[in-house]
Amino acid sequence: MRGSHSSVFDSELYSSLFTQPEMKQIWSDENLIHCWLEFETSVARVQAELDIIPDQAAEEIAATCRSLNVDWPRLATETRSVGMAIKPLVDQITDAGTPLVKKYLHWGCTTQDLLDSALAIRMKQTLQLVRGQLIELGDALKSMTLEHKTTVMVARTNSMDASATTWGLQVSSYLSELSRHIQRLDFLYPTAITGLFGGAVGNLASVGHQGMETRKNLMTALGLSTPVGMMNASQDNVVQVVQFFALVHGTLCRIANDVETMGRASIAEVREGEGGGGSSTMPHKTNPRASNMIQTLSRMGWTYASGATNLLDQQDVRAASMRVLNWSLIPESALTLSTSLERACRLISHLVVDKQRMRDNFNASKNFIMSESVSMKLAEKIGRDRGYNMMKKLLKDADGSQNLQQLALNCDPIRETLTKAEILAACDPSSYLGCNDALIDETVAFFDSVRNANR
Amino acid sequence: MRGSHSSVFDSELYSSLFTQPEMKQIWSDENLIHCWLEFETSVARVQAELDIIPDQAAEEIAATCRSLNVDWPRLATETRSVGMAIKPLVDQITDAGTPLVKKYLHWGCTTQDLLDSALAIRMKQTLQLVRGQLIELGDALKSMTLEHKTTVMVARTNSMDASATTWGLQVSSYLSELSRHIQRLDFLYPTAITGLFGGAVGNLASVGHQGMETRKNLMTALGLSTPVGMMNASQDNVVQVVQFFALVHGTLCRIANDVETMGRASIAEVREGEGGGGSSTMPHKTNPRASNMIQTLSRMGWTYASGATNLLDQQDVRAASMRVLNWSLIPESALTLSTSLERACRLISHLVVDKQRMRDNFNASKNFIMSESVSMKLAEKIGRDRGYNMMKKLLKDADGSQNLQQLALNCDPIRETLTKAEILAACDPSSYLGCNDALIDETVAFFDSVRNANR
Amino acid sequence: MRGSHSSVFDSELYSSLFTQPEMKQIWSDENLIHCWLEFETSVARVQAELDIIPDQAAEEIAATCRSLNVDWPRLATETRSVGMAIKPLVDQITDAGTPLVKKYLHWGCTTQDLLDSALAIRMKQTLQLVRGQLIELGDALKSMTLEHKTTVMVARTNSMDASATTWGLQVSSYLSELSRHIQRLDFLYPTAITGLFGGAVGNLASVGHQGMETRKNLMTALGLSTPVGMMNASQDNVVQVVQFFALVHGTLCRIANDVETMGRASIAEVREGEGGGGSSTMPHKTNPRASNMIQTLSRMGWTYASGATNLLDQQDVRAASMRVLNWSLIPESALTLSTSLERACRLISHLVVDKQRMRDNFNASKNFIMSESVSMKLAEKIGRDRGYNMMKKLLKDADGSQNLQQLALNCDPIRETLTKAEILAACDPSSYLGCNDALIDETVAFFDSVRNANR
Amino acid sequence: MRGSHSSVFDSELYSSLFTQPEMKQIWSDENLIHCWLEFETSVARVQAELDIIPDQAAEEIAATCRSLNVDWPRLATETRSVGMAIKPLVDQITDAGTPLVKKYLHWGCTTQDLLDSALAIRMKQTLQLVRGQLIELGDALKSMTLEHKTTVMVARTNSMDASATTWGLQVSSYLSELSRHIQRLDFLYPTAITGLFGGAVGNLASVGHQGMETRKNLMTALGLSTPVGMMNASQDNVVQVVQFFALVHGTLCRIANDVETMGRASIAEVREGEGGGGSSTMPHKTNPRASNMIQTLSRMGWTYASGATNLLDQQDVRAASMRVLNWSLIPESALTLSTSLERACRLISHLVVDKQRMRDNFNASKNFIMSESVSMKLAEKIGRDRGYNMMKKLLKDADGSQNLQQLALNCDPIRETLTKAEILAACDPSSYLGCNDALIDETVAFFDSVRNANR
Repeated sequence: MRGSHSSVFDSELYSSLFTQPEMKQIWSDENLIHCWLEFETSVARVQAELDIIPDQAAEEIAATCRSLNVDWPRLATETRSVGMAIKPLVDQITDAGTPLVKKYLHWGCTTQDLLDSALAIRMKQTLQLVRGQLIELGDALKSMTLEHKTTVMVARTNSMDASATTWGLQVSSYLSELSRHIQRLDFLYPTAITGLFGGAVGNLASVGHQGMETRKNLMTALGLSTPVGMMNASQDNVVQVVQFFALVHGTLCRIANDVETMGRASIAEVREGEGGGGSSTMPHKTNPRASNMIQTLSRMGWTYASGATNLLDQQDVRAASMRVLNWSLIPESALTLSTSLERACRLISHLVVDKQRMRDNFNASKNFIMSESVSMKLAEKIGRDRGYNMMKKLLKDADGSQNLQQLALNCDPIRETLTKAEILAACDPSSYLGCNDALIDETVAFFDSVRNANR
Repeated sequence: MRGSHSSVFDSELYSSLFTQPEMKQIWSDENLIHCWLEFETSVARVQAELDIIPDQAAEEIAATCRSLNVDWPRLATETRSVGMAIKPLVDQITDAGTPLVKKYLHWGCTTQDLLDSALAIRMKQTLQLVRGQLIELGDALKSMTLEHKTTVMVARTNSMDASATTWGLQVSSYLSELSRHIQRLDFLYPTAITGLFGGAVGNLASVGHQGMETRKNLMTALGLSTPVGMMNASQDNVVQVVQFFALVHGTLCRIANDVETMGRASIAEVREGEGGGGSSTMPHKTNPRASNMIQTLSRMGWTYASGATNLLDQQDVRAASMRVLNWSLIPESALTLSTSLERACRLISHLVVDKQRMRDNFNASKNFIMSESVSMKLAEKIGRDRGYNMMKKLLKDADGSQNLQQLALNCDPIRETLTKAEILAACDPSSYLGCNDALIDETVAFFDSVRNANR
Repeated sequence: MRGSHSSVFDSELYSSLFTQPEMKQIWSDENLIHCWLEFETSVARVQAELDIIPDQAAEEIAATCRSLNVDWPRLATETRSVGMAIKPLVDQITDAGTPLVKKYLHWGCTTQDLLDSALAIRMKQTLQLVRGQLIELGDALKSMTLEHKTTVMVARTNSMDASATTWGLQVSSYLSELSRHIQRLDFLYPTAITGLFGGAVGNLASVGHQGMETRKNLMTALGLSTPVGMMNASQDNVVQVVQFFALVHGTLCRIANDVETMGRASIAEVREGEGGGGSSTMPHKTNPRASNMIQTLSRMGWTYASGATNLLDQQDVRAASMRVLNWSLIPESALTLSTSLERACRLISHLVVDKQRMRDNFNASKNFIMSESVSMKLAEKIGRDRGYNMMKKLLKDADGSQNLQQLALNCDPIRETLTKAEILAACDPSSYLGCNDALIDETVAFFDSVRNANR
Repeated sequence: MRGSHSSVFDSELYSSLFTQPEMKQIWSDENLIHCWLEFETSVARVQAELDIIPDQAAEEIAATCRSLNVDWPRLATETRSVGMAIKPLVDQITDAGTPLVKKYLHWGCTTQDLLDSALAIRMKQTLQLVRGQLIELGDALKSMTLEHKTTVMVARTNSMDASATTWGLQVSSYLSELSRHIQRLDFLYPTAITGLFGGAVGNLASVGHQGMETRKNLMTALGLSTPVGMMNASQDNVVQVVQFFALVHGTLCRIANDVETMGRASIAEVREGEGGGGSSTMPHKTNPRASNMIQTLSRMGWTYASGATNLLDQQDVRAASMRVLNWSLIPESALTLSTSLERACRLISHLVVDKQRMRDNFNASKNFIMSESVSMKLAEKIGRDRGYNMMKKLLKDADGSQNLQQLALNCDPIRETLTKAEILAACDPSSYLGCNDALIDETVAFFDSVRNANR
């Protein structure tokens, strides 16, 4: 029915704001069924190779799965009744199959084997997509970093104007986080794509004496990592992914926070250039929709991470209650991250940077934010303590009519310590950027190295 | 496309396990559009009544909204571009409307007015549905409480067998929580259904001098509470609902926890009677699917509550980033709760209670769990301290061959203090139920009183 | 040992930043022991009045509790061994007591009765303190609201300059939330102070036939609400308080967010006036420490709320695991809120508001933010749609050299629709404040009414 | 004052239940001050080596720091006023120092440099302690796994008796998770111990041209990793640790859940052997205090993880509000984990395992739980589908008077398929353990390999 959906991920109105198309395909019902059929086909083939079931059975199972015309309404009805979709699907394959299919399908398998292996397959697809998106965003950040390596702007700490920095250095700090995220992804990737094949209670009893070999071959066939030991109740590899996504959201949220704040009318150093964002009532106004959506999506991602630890509250060989939670948490988690990554790429590549305004904003405080620079120059001559106090007094006594440069030039104790040229230099933001270039360079080199790391 | 959905709420496979049908309708795209059209129609009518716009305009707006054939794909595309759906919808109405519609539609309104008022309308529908479900579940719990008022069972604390109680009293403890939930709902209902009408920045400037009157009449027309003051950045009324839902999940989760544990093979005091829950590999096994789903849904509900406080992180007149979060949190939250309530109703009404097994389980510990009863009887004669220690020694010296009754009868210090009849009585669980009946009665009376309370 | 503490609440360095003194006293070990002794004394007195135990026993119990010299190290050691502190404390009283004390102390009680009733007593103290703090903050907000009723400033939505408003109206929106919080507190107060007395398994079996009467009299003696039914596993009343605290944090966080942003150098409309906040290296810089601490404390409060739902994951008659969680969550929760309330009071009462700068900031966008005002004036003549588009075009064509007033006066289509006087009026922010005064007045009246509501 | 503490971590009553002694020392005020003094001493020495400050200054700074007699009350007072403790401490050193100290102390540093580097030092101490605890627990689990490699017990899934397994395999599944945790720790260790040295705005401007070299040498001197690029606003390395701790809590919680459930009177397969846990009223009862505390601590750990993502909500060069959150989150997080690890070690090493009872519990369901075993034996002959249905019918028709073995022997279709010996073998749990030994062996080998991995 038109308009019957209720979740933002499937809503006809909203899904485009909350889903990245490839990621949506990965977590679709269709791909889920496809993964399960691939599992049944693969396990049969592997068992045939090990002479556990006849070759003919494996071929017929593959054929039946390939040509299966899923009866969706029946599947839905039986899933509602059973509480899990595996038995209903196995029943449909069985019904459609030959006697050999009926005899050997799902041999030695249990529901969890399919659920968890299909999760691992989709995790693999997800992490590959996310890695690509991280690199794409990283490339965009790298370009911006290098372009603005010397774009001087006010450095702000605790929302206060603090000193001078460059927009390139700020952007490089996003890139540094992003590079660590790629390293994290590469670390967790092998465990995140661990499949499952253990039979009813995880010890492969239903598979017979070739259990370990079957499991290994099956995982190879599916392109998954083979579990170590009995992992039915273990959800640490899954939770770790959701936690990792939360870290990535952190970087995206920082970018969004900065763009939003720096885009305020009184600061106006950057603005979103993507188009859209119009107000329904105020003609002059363009809202920072990309930043705002990224902020929204980050909270969603953090919320999922906070819920994900529940998956760890396991019992016995396994506990369905907490495992079913991942039917909701993982897809929403993956969708949210890929959507935000896509939006961040667009945001960065369209961002309008106003270099002149960045310079001009030093005037807002009459250059007082260069006081540390002057203070440090004094410190070199008379010590940190006296230098700090001399500046503190100067600023305290200022009546607001003069800027820092004028004040310093007119201040006897300072003039006794520093030359006019030294004062002028100390008040110029571009002379007080420290190791700006070296910091940017090592960050870019770091990104380049992880970008191309083999997995 | 078949199988394209990715969220459990809209998945063709899973949505029946995660959505209650009426609640799904409430949070559907269709109902959302309907609420917005109702808003536009109502605000026009109210403004016409106050002579702010011509009567004819209001009539034509109503007619256009009534007959509007929403162009969903265009709506989706423009929503993606603008970031909000209101302007795109207003454009469609405008396009479909007469000159008067074009001139007076959306008069003095801003996007947030529609978003928040439509949220309030659906909140109202949601809370009415939830109240009904709470009462339905309460009625079922009340019946079970009264039926099992004298069904003696082992009382367990900290997972240990502790003493005697009745199944009726345990069930009444769920009912007591449920009754408080109804009280909470009745308290928060008026604020939760507060609409919004404030224009661009909440001060009704765009509405003109009849702003307060327009707002009041509009809220009355929509069946909503009128805000007090300027509430654009205030999300406390919304967050409170999600927090309340989390409390209700607590009660449902307790029920599920108890049913699951008491259904373990070694305890076997209750079992789910709903049908379904079969294993794909173990013929003897029926899984407690209802309990498990309720546990899953409770974690989802608690996760939403943990995310909901983000809505409060507001700024200025309003901040879209955190408000958009409610597009996802509130519907999922409402769906999850109503699904769990429905499932709990079914669970309770089909629950199979094994009274005999409840009695038999006292034997598991050779009636040692009646030790407090004997201890208290001793205490009446010789003090709490000495009685406790006498029993402690008796149990410590027991070799496991005798039950409590036999041990007590053979213990000289006890026999010097209590008669045989006193010992036998103290070992009988049904004689040590304290105020069981009075506690049940007052709980049922409490439920009856809140059940019928006027809102 | 000097410096041995590890939590910010007890740290010698940090505790003053994280604790409000009276609240710290409420949640101190000392007050905890005091509550437990009060419970033992009260239950004995009540039981004596009902002739359950001798009057003399009650008197001696009271005397022993009154004069008890707690052996802290022994208490700590035994608590570590037992896992709960009640039995160790009861043993100390017993050891210090007469034979009658040994015989009748702790009569019919269980550990949970003391734990939960002591929690309720401290909840009562906490909520009374919090109510006072809410009123204190409300009074300060009310003053500021009234003082700045006509202080015109830029209204911002989604971080963008939107239109005109007053600082008084913005402050009144905090007051509106705060008033609802007082209503919430008054609603949950009676349930939050519900004590517990049920004996080992909650059915008062150990108390004998006068159980219900004993319970009622005991609760009256302790100044607590009497439970309805058996509530041992019910934590909803406790969780609700932590959730409520999270809502209050929302309001404080909004205030802090606004003060922080409006205090940025480029906006500079308000600044913290409390003193402190100096930088260790930048002489010119004063950090918004109060806002930042309030923001920190709000996250702590929201984190506790997200953890609190775990308390609801109960089982059987009770489950210690989740109940012990409240030993940590509730005190930290209460401390965090009261500290933040105290800090917010100081922040508001010392806040420096720069009315002139608020006015000046309209210039940052050349008054373009008054475009809605002009647009609405046009709409009155030619319809919303045409008015909006006329303004949209005007702003799009602007080259940045003229402000809105000049642009509008030079625009033929506008001049054909509006007189010069109408244009000038529409560009003046103070003429476009809508129902500013009425909204403020109703908010203040609302606060006044809940402030003085009887509990 | 006696009893003035309010947090469970410092409470005289409760701290022993919530703190591991070495971890408490790590996060004490004393160690914090010590780290800061070490930083000031080291930065001076490094700067002297690079000829940035005189050697004599470095020596005098070291001497002053070494002999500093911290004035705690003054430190507390000034910290309250400034909002941070660094400037107050620097002032105390300055006051106690020679003119050279006054001149060169804290040279080029900012508050955050000290805060974050001291955090990194304590993180290093924390992770080293945790790694040791993980290995200690792993060793205990390994012993138990090997000891119970053939201890047959009921395998349970979804709380239902499912089939046969061994206690050794179940324990090995904890060990498998634990081994992954050690791998995770080794991965995140180098980033988690990244210090900070960047000056006021992170670009080392205040340090002069030798900034990069100073930073590198300082980090080496402190035993910390050197940051890559500008990391002032980056908290990903910190959050990752709290998230990791949450994963470890998952394993501990699983152990506790299993011990608690398996210790219920009706199951009674294991019980805690640590002593303690007595009830204040029920003489027969010993509560599973270790399991319950571990469950409590896991929820605390998960709650901290849910709060930790807030640290990522950063802005500009840095934002104090979210960073201060780690003063509370990190210590509590570390204390909670180490306490739980210590408790789990004790729990495992004292656990009483009742092998006979594990065997006996198969009888609870008349061996019906061996039905899959018989079903699979049938399947080998007649196919999975027919075998499953044959067993399903057999069990459905059973009246409860016979056990599985008797039923199968009396069932004609089964007797036609299987011999008596095959049936008897299929009903014996120890014959249906699959790859039990291989799974255990590979898990132990995995643990051995990560246990000894170099960092």
